Amino acid sequence: MSHTAVIAGVGPGLGAALVRKFAKEGCRVGMFARSAAYLQRLEAELKQQSCGALAVPVDLREPTQVAAGFRAVRESFGPVEILVHHAGSASWKGLLDLTPDELEQGWRVAVYGGFLCAREAVPDMLKKGRGTILFTGATSSVRGRGGALAFSSAKFAVRGMAESLARELWPKGIHVAHVVIDGVIDTPDVRQNYRPDADEPLLNPDAIADSYWNLVQQERSAWTMELDLRPYKEEFFV
Amino acid sequence: MSHTAVIAGVGPGLGAALVRKFAKEGCRVGMFARSAAYLQRLEAELKQQSCGALAVPVDLREPTQVAAGFRAVRESFGPVEILVHHAGSASWKGLLDLTPDELEQGWRVAVYGGFLCAREAVPDMLKKGRGTILFTGATSSVRGRGGALAFSSAKFAVRGMAESLARELWPKGIHVAHVVIDGVIDTPDVRQNYRPDADEPLLNPDAIADSYWNLVQQERSAWTMELDLRPYKEEFFV
Amino acid sequence: MSHTAVIAGVGPGLGAALVRKFAKEGCRVGMFARSAAYLQRLEAELKQQSCGALAVPVDLREPTQVAAGFRAVRESFGPVEILVHHAGSASWKGLLDLTPDELEQGWRVAVYGGFLCAREAVPDMLKKGRGTILFTGATSSVRGRGGALAFSSAKFAVRGMAESLARELWPKGIHVAHVVIDGVIDTPDVRQNYRPDADEPLLNPDAIADSYWNLVQQERSAWTMELDLRPYKEEFFV
Amino acid sequence: MSHTAVIAGVGPGLGAALVRKFAKEGCRVGMFARSAAYLQRLEAELKQQSCGALAVPVDLREPTQVAAGFRAVRESFGPVEILVHHAGSASWKGLLDLTPDELEQGWRVAVYGGFLCAREAVPDMLKKGRGTILFTGATSSVRGRGGALAFSSAKFAVRGMAESLARELWPKGIHVAHVVIDGVIDTPDVRQNYRPDADEPLLNPDAIADSYWNLVQQERSAWTMELDLRPYKEEFFV
Repeated sequence: MSHTAVIAGVGPGLGAALVRKFAKEGCRVGMFARSAAYLQRLEAELKQQSCGALAVPVDLREPTQVAAGFRAVRESFGPVEILVHHAGSASWKGLLDLTPDELEQGWRVAVYGGFLCAREAVPDMLKKGRGTILFTGATSSVRGRGGALAFSSAKFAVRGMAESLARELWPKGIHVAHVVIDGVIDTPDVRQNYRPDADEPLLNPDAIADSYWNLVQQERSAWTMELDLRPYKEEFFV
Repeated sequence: MSHTAVIAGVGPGLGAALVRKFAKEGCRVGMFARSAAYLQRLEAELKQQSCGALAVPVDLREPTQVAAGFRAVRESFGPVEILVHHAGSASWKGLLDLTPDELEQGWRVAVYGGFLCAREAVPDMLKKGRGTILFTGATSSVRGRGGALAFSSAKFAVRGMAESLARELWPKGIHVAHVVIDGVIDTPDVRQNYRPDADEPLLNPDAIADSYWNLVQQERSAWTMELDLRPYKEEFFV
Repeated sequence: MSHTAVIAGVGPGLGAALVRKFAKEGCRVGMFARSAAYLQRLEAELKQQSCGALAVPVDLREPTQVAAGFRAVRESFGPVEILVHHAGSASWKGLLDLTPDELEQGWRVAVYGGFLCAREAVPDMLKKGRGTILFTGATSSVRGRGGALAFSSAKFAVRGMAESLARELWPKGIHVAHVVIDGVIDTPDVRQNYRPDADEPLLNPDAIADSYWNLVQQERSAWTMELDLRPYKEEFFV
Repeated sequence: MSHTAVIAGVGPGLGAALVRKFAKEGCRVGMFARSAAYLQRLEAELKQQSCGALAVPVDLREPTQVAAGFRAVRESFGPVEILVHHAGSASWKGLLDLTPDELEQGWRVAVYGGFLCAREAVPDMLKKGRGTILFTGATSSVRGRGGALAFSSAKFAVRGMAESLARELWPKGIHVAHVVIDGVIDTPDVRQNYRPDADEPLLNPDAIADSYWNLVQQERSAWTMELDLRPYKEEFFV
């Protein structure tokens, strides 16, 4: 059985790993991100493997763009059954360095964008009586970080939204869950710029994607609302 | 010793109780709310009791208004040492009934407004090397409520902001704390419209205000980051 | 590859489902429980399917019996790589009805027994540099229940033990995790005695066992410390 | 108005500070600890200040001794209205160093002893329709510490007991609360043996005692179940 999935926030890290995993498991995947270039490369890669994938450049902060993105996915692949909201930005600033606009943009991508995606996806899911919505969280979703005000506030807000949606939508057959990623994900960008110690453990994006897929597969008599993921050598912040 | 306090979000419920308690304890209180009428009545009441109080009509969603409000308080009472951010709105709607604008306005009053107040107040506090910032939370700050998406998301965001600020500002002598009010507060509005059972317990705003004041009084070797308040007969939602 | 697992607390509900799932996935399973009868039936069933299973009658409250149980498993199947501690008892009494002995026995099975199993299993795991230890929690692990003092206290204690062990053992390659089962499991006993409404959702033990197995399968760059499981129609207690 | 209080676990640190604070506020205090010497010195000190205090040597792990201790307090001071359970021991060992007996003794003092005290005190409180029970927690009550298995497990268990008792007893007018002390308390023993950096902040026991007393004073329409206390410069572990 083939599901239609939307993954919002696709770059060359966890986003790409999620797309590849879900496509490999038979999903047709609509990929949302602001810039088209990377999405198109990923679309080409997946089509070569005979997987269904569609690059959909979308600014998640714009209701009309989000609606148009979902229409494009539906036209290619049919009603959406899986939504992964993975977008977020990290303005690592404390109170006096952060501008009101930076606070707002952090909220707009993570929270407002997540809401816009959910309200597009859920009517499709309600018609089928089933669906899955997964939100990506971070250490700062459960423990406000000093000097990361915009990020902490937005990540808490996403978690509150996820919990509220879970209580609203689970009884209607829609599995909403929140994944707390507690550590640094191993991406090309991190490798290049962040230069972790050889010793510092990073989360493998493919391993994370496996756990996301397990959530999609859960039988509805035993659904998970929240799980954490962290490297075996990570200190536990959470 | 007399402190200058700003209480943001003053109406005839907990806001008024906080103003009265803090004034009675010797604070000079700047009172922020959107409409002037109620603030002016409260100012008159407090002046009759020889307490320092200033009605400051402010739309907390507007950076220039918030800045002007703090200037007005400073001119009358000197640098701000205490900030209580108590403003919030409750749009009790589920995913498909909530408009993007309602989601945004809920965030703007509670989170954006709280941020704007904090960045005005903190420079005053840093100069003195001490201060107190208190945020009002709710059951939905720690447990997303089904059918209250905007409220849950905004209240989680406030808590994340409070935790982030605490980690940033405690070491500089500024006590940031978050109060989870788990239940319905006994206000004129609730009495009139909500018509609780005779049996249903409500939180007495004056009792809540006592606990806020205790937080202000704590010695810095043993500060509280978070406490909950609920009636003895309330079911525990949290 | 075939792993040796010990499942402590095996009765005809989740315990049996875990044994069947782990055996089906290729584990050789040592089954611990106080009474031998049910274990032997399960051993016979699994042997017919050419699965490795060993009935080991053990009183988990007795250090010498626990040590002997592990020796028996090692002799048959080799060093232990997986431990599931699933045992617990539920004395649903409030403060004045509960006897000191009932409080103690609740602790002894769930906490003391879990500790005794872990200290037998971990040296085997340390030698291999890998292993998995899973603890079964409940709603009352994270939210003390009124009128269930012994159960709440024991379940919190198990969670504290699991977190402490995770921080100690993850860096040594041993994955310790805690599963919060938030609801009533569908067992023969529940069907017969508890007589739930036709409408009340129960957790399917096989679905739970799938999630336990997913934890065993996680790659160590992205391990989970805690997840919850509950039916889609369950109220969220947690 | 004068209340009868029992403080269980009195040594020259927080225990003594609680006794002094509660006595100063007018309570007559029964002081429980295993060894009599320190209690008697404290009793003499308080009597000189015309405060009611009674040294009651009690091994909290022994039901008959706990019952006798409460009888002694009742005979001197009347029915008990306030109980502070403050006793606990800290065996800081990991899994393979900890003996089963050490695990058991940690549980017995903190959990079993707390239970024994509560079941002696609560009948007195139920007769009056009011009372307060306070439990002392630690960082390890909410976050299991690696290498402190017995302590983490016992502290979690105390918190589970406190939550269960709160839900059972609040509706009957008995305020049960749990205080998470997140850091090192400034005691003679810590000063002498632990030799903290001059820079390391310690919690002042008198400041902690003030917050305990505020809990006793709360009006029942706005009770607190849990609060944390930590120094302004403490890293937040919790």
